[in-house]
Amino acid sequence: MFEVKDIKDTNLADNPVIAQMSQYNHEQLLFCNDNATGLKAIIAVHSTVLGPALGGTRMWAYDNEMQALNDVLRLSRGMTYKNSLAGLNLGGGKAVIIGDSRTMKSEAYLRRFGKFVNGLAGKYITAEDVGINPADMAYVNMETDHVVGLAGKSGDPSPVTAHGVYVGMKACAKVQFGSDSLAGKKVVVQGVGHVGEYLVESLAKEGAIVYISDIHQDLLNRVASQYGANIIGLNEVYDMDMDIYAPCALGATINTDTLSRLKCSIIAGSANNQLENEQVHGKMVMEKGIIYAPDYAINSGGVINCYSEVKDLSLTWSMNKAEEIYATVENIVNRSKSDNIPTYEIANKMAEERIASVGNVKLPM
Amino acid sequence: MFEVKDIKDTNLADNPVIAQMSQYNHEQLLFCNDNATGLKAIIAVHSTVLGPALGGTRMWAYDNEMQALNDVLRLSRGMTYKNSLAGLNLGGGKAVIIGDSRTMKSEAYLRRFGKFVNGLAGKYITAEDVGINPADMAYVNMETDHVVGLAGKSGDPSPVTAHGVYVGMKACAKVQFGSDSLAGKKVVVQGVGHVGEYLVESLAKEGAIVYISDIHQDLLNRVASQYGANIIGLNEVYDMDMDIYAPCALGATINTDTLSRLKCSIIAGSANNQLENEQVHGKMVMEKGIIYAPDYAINSGGVINCYSEVKDLSLTWSMNKAEEIYATVENIVNRSKSDNIPTYEIANKMAEERIASVGNVKLPM
Repeated sequence: MFEVKDIKDTNLADNPVIAQMSQYNHEQLLFCNDNATGLKAIIAVHSTVLGPALGGTRMWAYDNEMQALNDVLRLSRGMTYKNSLAGLNLGGGKAVIIGDSRTMKSEAYLRRFGKFVNGLAGKYITAEDVGINPADMAYVNMETDHVVGLAGKSGDPSPVTAHGVYVGMKACAKVQFGSDSLAGKKVVVQGVGHVGEYLVESLAKEGAIVYISDIHQDLLNRVASQYGANIIGLNEVYDMDMDIYAPCALGATINTDTLSRLKCSIIAGSANNQLENEQVHGKMVMEKGIIYAPDYAINSGGVINCYSEVKDLSLTWSMNKAEEIYATVENIVNRSKSDNIPTYEIANKMAEERIASVGNVKLPM
Repeated sequence: MFEVKDIKDTNLADNPVIAQMSQYNHEQLLFCNDNATGLKAIIAVHSTVLGPALGGTRMWAYDNEMQALNDVLRLSRGMTYKNSLAGLNLGGGKAVIIGDSRTMKSEAYLRRFGKFVNGLAGKYITAEDVGINPADMAYVNMETDHVVGLAGKSGDPSPVTAHGVYVGMKACAKVQFGSDSLAGKKVVVQGVGHVGEYLVESLAKEGAIVYISDIHQDLLNRVASQYGANIIGLNEVYDMDMDIYAPCALGATINTDTLSRLKCSIIAGSANNQLENEQVHGKMVMEKGIIYAPDYAINSGGVINCYSEVKDLSLTWSMNKAEEIYATVENIVNRSKSDNIPTYEIANKMAEERIASVGNVKLPM
């Protein structure tokens, strides 16, 4: 979600870490090493102003440390914004493990990582991300309680995420069409994996005309027949006659090419990193008169679900909290219109405003 | 005490941190940043195999992060060896604060550093080092209990350090002269600050013939008259007719120049980093038939005193623990003679052997 800017006033080779941290006020980075297991990881705590830093652990065969460092700086900051905008008592963090997830993982390796997480005494709470699965997290959990998204705990976050996307979409409709009813609206749902399917269910119930695409033909057929949705081809998505486009799979689908084709008036979906280039395409989508619900604002049901696990709250609590995404998206869209500033920039400002206001009454942890 | 080797098999610019950690199996490095106070620091935990990592906080106006990184990697590893050889339940760590200690310190700055130390939940215990004074440590202590060397706690470590140097010197005498009595031996004590003065007191009591030098003339005069020591000029030290040379001030006084002049048969003093170049001068001193008591083995009274504060132990306990330096130095010197390996290398081996043996019965923290 954010690109780390070039550092012009300093020599990166001589100042590889803290100079980059100070750009966006990252609080701390823990570099972890264990020769016995081969574990190499970086745990980033961007901000704990709002609460402990929550964010997933990504395992990736980075070419070098600087790639991993850039990723963890960018992703941990993104989590601060996401958790802030979701109104949670959580800061932003992220961990990256440098290694090949197909060959390097073992119980000792993952438990060693868990020990490092535990050593931060709750300042960082981890969860699954790319390259890490529930079995891996169970090993991490043997060494630390600061883990969420465990099997048998809060469970599949998809219903919560889908509900947030659904209410966020309705908020966009209210501003764009004067009513938040989606009955009769043509909605294209791109990707009907867990979140997409729950979204289709809600849309169908409300009487929207739903079009779906997916690379998995079996899934597509089942969802179409179960909810009365219409199947469209992968390449038809951007050229459909539709009111609402809901990207729920791939990132970067809002780009110069697709914006020249899209005929929708709302974009609201669960995918991460929907704008190929935030600055360029965030502005372009606004100028086309399309309302874009910022991805990290509308898909925060996932972190809401994580928070419910941290605090041992019910699914009902999570669904109610996800309901607040309606008001958040409505505020973002209205402020975007009145200030003539892209929605993603407004979302960032709102996230920052909350942190600044709380930061004024609370010293950093 | 250790130089970080060149990394030949990797590109330092792309792999600035973990590649260096893996050379000597550093466990973790915490990079700390706080834009509000300007604090930039690195806390290194080299090893916690033997216990929590103890080592001082150094504040220095490093030219860049890589200088600070090299310092903290080297110094934290040195503390692992020192604490291991002292037989303490402590691992090795160190912190460096990047900044000008004359202009940048404030309560907020030092308390912020204390919060970072506290966030490591006791895995790192800090103390004073260059650029940090007792008033600074009092601020750090407001945010964390993981601090030692506080005013009003275990107090001045000099008597303990001096006692360790004294008994270590006697151990060298036993091997070199067949008796550990220092009566009648000519001893040059270079530097009569706190540790040096206590050492002079012990030597005088035992009937050694003590020569002293110092840059502070008043101190020199007082110590000379109080203990019946003989004053010599700063430049006379290396050319004296003496049995024992006790460097208790400057580092790097054992070098090619001084070794061509020194007529002693034992070098045993409290100064840090006595060998200008470990490999070159460690070998040269051995080849000259001089017994060199490795600095970090003989001056470990300081960390013994710190440990007594961590565990709330008495000065009597510390003095007794420092007494064990006799046996440690005797072992080092005997093993050096039988293996024909410089004493500093034997000291390193013994420190590593203890860590390896304990590591086999205890997983890393």
